[in-house]
Amino acid sequence: MSWISKSYMGRRGVAGGEAGKTHSLTEKKQGTYNYVYGPYAKPVLKINPGDVVVAETRDAFNGAIKTVKDLPSKTLNFPYVNPQNGPIFVKGAEKGDVLAVHIHAIEPRGPQPVGTTALIPEFGGLVGTSTTAMLNKPLPEVVKKMNVTTKGVVFNKRITLPYEPFIGTLGVSPEIEAVLSLQPDYWGGNMDLPDVAPGAIIYFPVQLAGAYLYLGDCHARQGDGELCGVAVEIPATATIQVDLIKSWAIPGVRLETESMIMSVGSARPMEDAARIAYRDLVRWMVSDYGYDEVEAYFLATQAGRVRVGNMVDPKYTLGASILKEYLV
Amino acid sequence: MSWISKSYMGRRGVAGGEAGKTHSLTEKKQGTYNYVYGPYAKPVLKINPGDVVVAETRDAFNGAIKTVKDLPSKTLNFPYVNPQNGPIFVKGAEKGDVLAVHIHAIEPRGPQPVGTTALIPEFGGLVGTSTTAMLNKPLPEVVKKMNVTTKGVVFNKRITLPYEPFIGTLGVSPEIEAVLSLQPDYWGGNMDLPDVAPGAIIYFPVQLAGAYLYLGDCHARQGDGELCGVAVEIPATATIQVDLIKSWAIPGVRLETESMIMSVGSARPMEDAARIAYRDLVRWMVSDYGYDEVEAYFLATQAGRVRVGNMVDPKYTLGASILKEYLV
Amino acid sequence: MSWISKSYMGRRGVAGGEAGKTHSLTEKKQGTYNYVYGPYAKPVLKINPGDVVVAETRDAFNGAIKTVKDLPSKTLNFPYVNPQNGPIFVKGAEKGDVLAVHIHAIEPRGPQPVGTTALIPEFGGLVGTSTTAMLNKPLPEVVKKMNVTTKGVVFNKRITLPYEPFIGTLGVSPEIEAVLSLQPDYWGGNMDLPDVAPGAIIYFPVQLAGAYLYLGDCHARQGDGELCGVAVEIPATATIQVDLIKSWAIPGVRLETESMIMSVGSARPMEDAARIAYRDLVRWMVSDYGYDEVEAYFLATQAGRVRVGNMVDPKYTLGASILKEYLV
Amino acid sequence: MSWISKSYMGRRGVAGGEAGKTHSLTEKKQGTYNYVYGPYAKPVLKINPGDVVVAETRDAFNGAIKTVKDLPSKTLNFPYVNPQNGPIFVKGAEKGDVLAVHIHAIEPRGPQPVGTTALIPEFGGLVGTSTTAMLNKPLPEVVKKMNVTTKGVVFNKRITLPYEPFIGTLGVSPEIEAVLSLQPDYWGGNMDLPDVAPGAIIYFPVQLAGAYLYLGDCHARQGDGELCGVAVEIPATATIQVDLIKSWAIPGVRLETESMIMSVGSARPMEDAARIAYRDLVRWMVSDYGYDEVEAYFLATQAGRVRVGNMVDPKYTLGASILKEYLV
Repeated sequence: MSWISKSYMGRRGVAGGEAGKTHSLTEKKQGTYNYVYGPYAKPVLKINPGDVVVAETRDAFNGAIKTVKDLPSKTLNFPYVNPQNGPIFVKGAEKGDVLAVHIHAIEPRGPQPVGTTALIPEFGGLVGTSTTAMLNKPLPEVVKKMNVTTKGVVFNKRITLPYEPFIGTLGVSPEIEAVLSLQPDYWGGNMDLPDVAPGAIIYFPVQLAGAYLYLGDCHARQGDGELCGVAVEIPATATIQVDLIKSWAIPGVRLETESMIMSVGSARPMEDAARIAYRDLVRWMVSDYGYDEVEAYFLATQAGRVRVGNMVDPKYTLGASILKEYLV
Repeated sequence: MSWISKSYMGRRGVAGGEAGKTHSLTEKKQGTYNYVYGPYAKPVLKINPGDVVVAETRDAFNGAIKTVKDLPSKTLNFPYVNPQNGPIFVKGAEKGDVLAVHIHAIEPRGPQPVGTTALIPEFGGLVGTSTTAMLNKPLPEVVKKMNVTTKGVVFNKRITLPYEPFIGTLGVSPEIEAVLSLQPDYWGGNMDLPDVAPGAIIYFPVQLAGAYLYLGDCHARQGDGELCGVAVEIPATATIQVDLIKSWAIPGVRLETESMIMSVGSARPMEDAARIAYRDLVRWMVSDYGYDEVEAYFLATQAGRVRVGNMVDPKYTLGASILKEYLV
Repeated sequence: MSWISKSYMGRRGVAGGEAGKTHSLTEKKQGTYNYVYGPYAKPVLKINPGDVVVAETRDAFNGAIKTVKDLPSKTLNFPYVNPQNGPIFVKGAEKGDVLAVHIHAIEPRGPQPVGTTALIPEFGGLVGTSTTAMLNKPLPEVVKKMNVTTKGVVFNKRITLPYEPFIGTLGVSPEIEAVLSLQPDYWGGNMDLPDVAPGAIIYFPVQLAGAYLYLGDCHARQGDGELCGVAVEIPATATIQVDLIKSWAIPGVRLETESMIMSVGSARPMEDAARIAYRDLVRWMVSDYGYDEVEAYFLATQAGRVRVGNMVDPKYTLGASILKEYLV
Repeated sequence: MSWISKSYMGRRGVAGGEAGKTHSLTEKKQGTYNYVYGPYAKPVLKINPGDVVVAETRDAFNGAIKTVKDLPSKTLNFPYVNPQNGPIFVKGAEKGDVLAVHIHAIEPRGPQPVGTTALIPEFGGLVGTSTTAMLNKPLPEVVKKMNVTTKGVVFNKRITLPYEPFIGTLGVSPEIEAVLSLQPDYWGGNMDLPDVAPGAIIYFPVQLAGAYLYLGDCHARQGDGELCGVAVEIPATATIQVDLIKSWAIPGVRLETESMIMSVGSARPMEDAARIAYRDLVRWMVSDYGYDEVEAYFLATQAGRVRVGNMVDPKYTLGASILKEYLV
């Protein structure tokens, strides 16, 4: 209970941050997964604010990389990657509202080794890509499989990394666009931001009636920037609580935990992602916490924190945050 | 005739570069205009390779800025800007083919002053934007209307600029995405590249059956970069001839005139647009003109030319070209 | 003692990480401060590896902003800002070696309010600058003074921020260049990276005989990115121990604490700073910790951490780090 | 005579654009060449405004690449590349003035094949570099030698490219910095901008008494962007006329020909170079040609032209220009 009741979701949500009915969105119920965030797909579920959804997400490869021999160039069929559950229609949601998504839990599902990472040709932060176009030869393709439980990610015999799961791709539909699930933007999508984790509440600006919530691409963990382009990808069971805040005009994704608030920016070059995130954070401090713009700018300068989500997707994602203890 | 018969369209087009039937795509026939490039709209026209389309395009503001008092923030309803004719279904076109668009003519239509440019808040190359997010106050909104005929653009009493029209937004549909008509990418779209002009042939990589050709956003002229974000926008009658080249795998937009070939790149930051364009140009020289990669790289270094199309749209567009006389 | 003896400095330093003689570099002894990192100034001190230097650093404004009425445009005389102590000649240092700087302590000095931050016209992360050139009007100039002790930074009546000091500008001289102390690069300089803090050891690639160490620009604290361009600037007493590692070829700045190793990159756009940092981290893991390149790349992807130092200086600075516990 | 008398140099130059005494700056007289632009070298020549200098420049490799077997990694000794003649002390020049350099002629000198281009490891526009750091393997090193006369550049047996020479590196000294001759900035330097050619007048903002003019790095020709990083490098005899304009505050390099004026920007990412160039062009139109800012912004939008100088040096260089016929 605790801080949730004081959160934006708790104070302003239609359901007041209270959990409602639970919906199961199994692979079977989902049926066809989605590869774009858009308004053109038919909702698989209609829910009320407060409702909880337990979704069976697939990994970013649609499960096609079963062994280390399943090379990406052989098994992946671009643009049919990063499959998404949804869209979920949220009753009462309209353009100008905010969808609040409180993540309850993320658990791996399926046979071990359930975690996958890989070097994909012309993709990643330290190689030439189709965008940062180079004449250099690509690195060789490599697939790595890892046992993943809620106790840890077995990276190799010596190293087990903490299980710190999050939802890699989560968001609402743009108004008239249908954008690849590989891309993040102001409405969410493939942010690959580790803060989108159990315990956090993420706020999305609704662009159309029903909001059309999508989710997928769970990661067992990831370093800052998702350097090679692929985290510890897992099929998962993700449990989220969805609430609705009416008439809250936010320009992009925001996030809240017990201790901090965060604004998220997605853009290239990376400094533009930082600018988007920090400008919104400054304006948030002004609109909601009584700072004037200059003091907010000064405080963000001295106490702001930046998380690099991804430096590999079509837009890079950064989160700029400040501790709630400084918002007094 | 001349060079067209030797062009890619002339040599490899299904219609051999010969003009076929002419279709009229009036405002009335178009009916609802489009604001995304995507596969979800119903084709307004089905044509054969070689067919000519005479399209009545609207200006980027949908005609809403009628006088200098019609400020953008009052008259524009984002994202319903930059209306597009189409989609035009091209029979026989399949993924992996190339659509060739030969521009015959662009003529202004409608009552004078028919040309419009404007300062739009938080948009343009020398101001903070929603992406290059700043705390500075925006510039004031300003609208400028200009008389435009095929004889010139009357910029003011002293200066008449040459009428050098081109199609600002032209391309085929992505496979499963529906992308704002404000954005350019490898399939074309809002490139705002002055070389997309009468006389040129532009080649687009087909992503889905029928190609789904869109066009709109004609400009009476524009400087390099489209600095303030808005060219001399005009409603126009655009005449294009559409041909189809089967099984030509190109990674993005290419362009040909009598004297040169050009590869087009759209990305941020701008150097990535240049890299995309130049890498494709080098590879084109290798695949079609007998150069090895190093020699092509050297020749592009010493004789390549770069046109900055736009430095204002969601992706910046550059064209890299080389004279045909060096491709011997 | 503990971890220091196992550090690179402890294991490979000429002085074995042992502190030698202490030198006092007072304002008086320093005399003229420096505004460039270069080989053209005469050393103010010659020290042996292991020696400790206690330096009286000035704040970045050379002390000229004494009250909130001392506006930057009136008091600062560009390029004579960010004054630096040094150069310190380190005996035995040659090109191809590494200078190790272990920071012992940073204490504010001078009359209160000793901390200064400010909005400087056309400078900062959320405004147009001389580089990201805009036509928007600049923000108004504002100066903020803060009481700073080792117990905290009094931001305002309600908020006291932790005292988390670091050296904003620290590094060795380039070989033949003299670069403004406002700029960071592979040899250090104005990195504005909060990890350059008491307890850390920072490694710099020596470019010329004697290394020519410079330092200055102490910050009482700073958020990630140094958003407005100015941290909590203080005149300080900085105590550093300097050691020398012979024949260690590193391409840029590296850093070590008890728990992690970090590579630092400085460049624009920001993704290039991240690339520099992460590539060096990967290569460091390969050269010193037995990883092959692909495994290092994978591990950095899943466990790497990024700190955004500054997003305001002539080059942006990021640090990419990994916990030592994963380097087994 | 003609347009020169109406140029800024002709109208405002201390020498009124009239040529004075001619000085010969031979290899012998130059003696040691320079590898930085800075105030720390001793002038090799003191001249009066109006004086002409005939300089024997070396190629960017200092002549070390004599045959195609002299690979860059073997023959080049970074940072001792791109040798520069100068500094030339211009009497009467002070900070706040402008140095005008009118290029009379550039002629190749030395034994054939006198032109050199090369692939240098980790350098160039389509490869990973030390800044755009990649894990991809570098391209192989290749050297190409070409016969160059004033009649043409013999690229291969079939292709002779036009001889369109320019000075790759030209500028004045920064005030207190000494910057590698590989880098361009607001004071000039390694702009690699083909417009810096015979017939043009280039204007540099003087930063210190005497101006300290440097030049070198002549190119027989170059495409836009200098794609692989190396133009057709030649040792040359460059003839320039130097004039002085007192009290003209310009923020960076400007350029004038008979038909146009150009502002030059050097920065990364490339859009910042474009912003610098275009902002200065707009402000120039406002200060000198009677436009208000909005009209100048509009005119630059519709009639501005952009030249990409280099996309390979430490800062990218672009020139933004407008025809004089529109400045009425």
